[in-house]
Amino acid sequence: MSIPTREWQLVRRPHGEPVDEDFALVSMERPDPAPGEVVVRTLAMSVDPYMRGRMNATRSYAPSWELGETMQGGAIGQVVDSRSDEVPVGALVLHGLAWRDVAVVPAAHVSVVDPLPGLPLSLYLGVLGMPGLTAWAGLFRLAAFAEGDAVFVSGAAGAVGSLVGQFAKLRGASRVVGSAGTAEKVAWLGEIGFDAAFDYHAGAVADLLAEAAPDGIDVFFDNVGGEHLEAAIGAFRTYGRAALCGSISGYNAVSAPPGPRNLSLVVGKRLSLRGFIVGDHADLRPEFVAAVSGWLQDGSLVARETVVEGLDSAVEAFRSLLGGGNTGKMVVRLAPDPA
Amino acid sequence: MSIPTREWQLVRRPHGEPVDEDFALVSMERPDPAPGEVVVRTLAMSVDPYMRGRMNATRSYAPSWELGETMQGGAIGQVVDSRSDEVPVGALVLHGLAWRDVAVVPAAHVSVVDPLPGLPLSLYLGVLGMPGLTAWAGLFRLAAFAEGDAVFVSGAAGAVGSLVGQFAKLRGASRVVGSAGTAEKVAWLGEIGFDAAFDYHAGAVADLLAEAAPDGIDVFFDNVGGEHLEAAIGAFRTYGRAALCGSISGYNAVSAPPGPRNLSLVVGKRLSLRGFIVGDHADLRPEFVAAVSGWLQDGSLVARETVVEGLDSAVEAFRSLLGGGNTGKMVVRLAPDPA
Repeated sequence: MSIPTREWQLVRRPHGEPVDEDFALVSMERPDPAPGEVVVRTLAMSVDPYMRGRMNATRSYAPSWELGETMQGGAIGQVVDSRSDEVPVGALVLHGLAWRDVAVVPAAHVSVVDPLPGLPLSLYLGVLGMPGLTAWAGLFRLAAFAEGDAVFVSGAAGAVGSLVGQFAKLRGASRVVGSAGTAEKVAWLGEIGFDAAFDYHAGAVADLLAEAAPDGIDVFFDNVGGEHLEAAIGAFRTYGRAALCGSISGYNAVSAPPGPRNLSLVVGKRLSLRGFIVGDHADLRPEFVAAVSGWLQDGSLVARETVVEGLDSAVEAFRSLLGGGNTGKMVVRLAPDPA
Repeated sequence: MSIPTREWQLVRRPHGEPVDEDFALVSMERPDPAPGEVVVRTLAMSVDPYMRGRMNATRSYAPSWELGETMQGGAIGQVVDSRSDEVPVGALVLHGLAWRDVAVVPAAHVSVVDPLPGLPLSLYLGVLGMPGLTAWAGLFRLAAFAEGDAVFVSGAAGAVGSLVGQFAKLRGASRVVGSAGTAEKVAWLGEIGFDAAFDYHAGAVADLLAEAAPDGIDVFFDNVGGEHLEAAIGAFRTYGRAALCGSISGYNAVSAPPGPRNLSLVVGKRLSLRGFIVGDHADLRPEFVAAVSGWLQDGSLVARETVVEGLDSAVEAFRSLLGGGNTGKMVVRLAPDPA
């Protein structure tokens, strides 16, 4: 018996902004699980900005996807068949093989989840998952955040940015400023505790930042790239630290954008600019999960999601994400959480 | 009795490249030393790239010089009059008040030197002084150099760069590559042990670097800025580290140069770019002096100087420095070392 599934494949490399014709939703059958494998029905899958890089032929930090093969990404699902003693039928698991209805995965490649009561499982794709750990590692390790620091987050209404700002406030930031792409997002940042926020379409980022953080900043967490970094370098106090997480403003760019013109300030201000990939910081997971689980359960942390329904809508969700259509974590839900 | 002296003053802020009319050599008299002060006759004084920033009205990391006041800078001299018990007449001392024949200085602001036998005192302005410690701190602390790393140094024939490359070789670099501004400097880099070197006027720096370091680099020590940083970011292996020390290519610039277009690689390669000022790293001085003194005495380190004679030539020496007229440390000698 084989396993019917529908899967999203990359069939053409996007040039600039991805279009529908770059992808195909394919009905197919996967072979039954081999010994040690489990079959997982997807409950919710993640679409993330870094996936844009995997669609290019040139290798980024994650390998390129092959044309005509199914894409991959973070997902949470339920085991519906198992040839592993460790992971029984019914278990809720995280794995990295979604963009599909059903995944056949080695049991060693899944993580069994013991869900927090009353919270949706999709939080394991966001605040309790890769985006959450990204925010944690970038803020606390790469940017060496310390109590009293003033923090600026670009793309602050996204999955990662909205957590960076809240983590900083919960740990004693003197001021947290965020940028976002719409007035609605800016308003929401105020609701979740940012001290100031601005729409980066409303003027020069450097001017908007100077107004929002008149005394300067100590930490910059960058999700956007481009003009934001130049503005942050200008606003930094001595010994400022930037954690460079991504540059969504450039992911669809066909030619490279110019870099900041004020890099000479990096010397005089003794700045540190550090790029990072969350996969290098898995050792922080225990402290991250402990802190964030507590904040979620006592209500001090807001974990918003933008949920798109159905595998058919996954490409649409991804394209919307690159255009800033999400507030908080963009999630594609394939099936309701089990009762 | 007062003390006759000649001193260089800044009389106009340079626009772009400094010209002779921006400076005046003034004959004047300084008051006799107060209690606790010493009078030091200058033997040799330093001109350094960072001084260009002090000539601007906008504050850099060192404060701006006032118009019509005497400039300052590192110097070594001999005490000719003393009202301090700690620093007697005849002592050889380092201080920060040259651009003048004679300095009147609080004894607490001088460092008494116990010279290494057979070596010129001016080495305390270079390899044993601020440029040496700059090379040491940048390479070993900021860029976290480790044995086996491949290192790229820009402005490698200068006071700092020539030491960075040699320090790296002495501590086990797998490859050391330098850039310089003339064919003569490039040839000299080969003589002092660089594995490869190129003239950065000979083509695109990225292409020249790719040829000189075909397997990429782990550490970049930047004295030049501009195109060099973009080339280094492109050549970095994963986890590459840059120590950003200066950007002499831009010191005379009237408008800001464009930044590197490939900053998005900082994320995927997990790069670290750190600016620094040597003054923050004085705690490294004991280990630095111990290692470098040993290397100088056993002949394993080459400390070349470009010596210009006479206080009258100090501005000319400074202007030449900004144009790359020096190989190794640029020094202005006012008087021979005491026998």
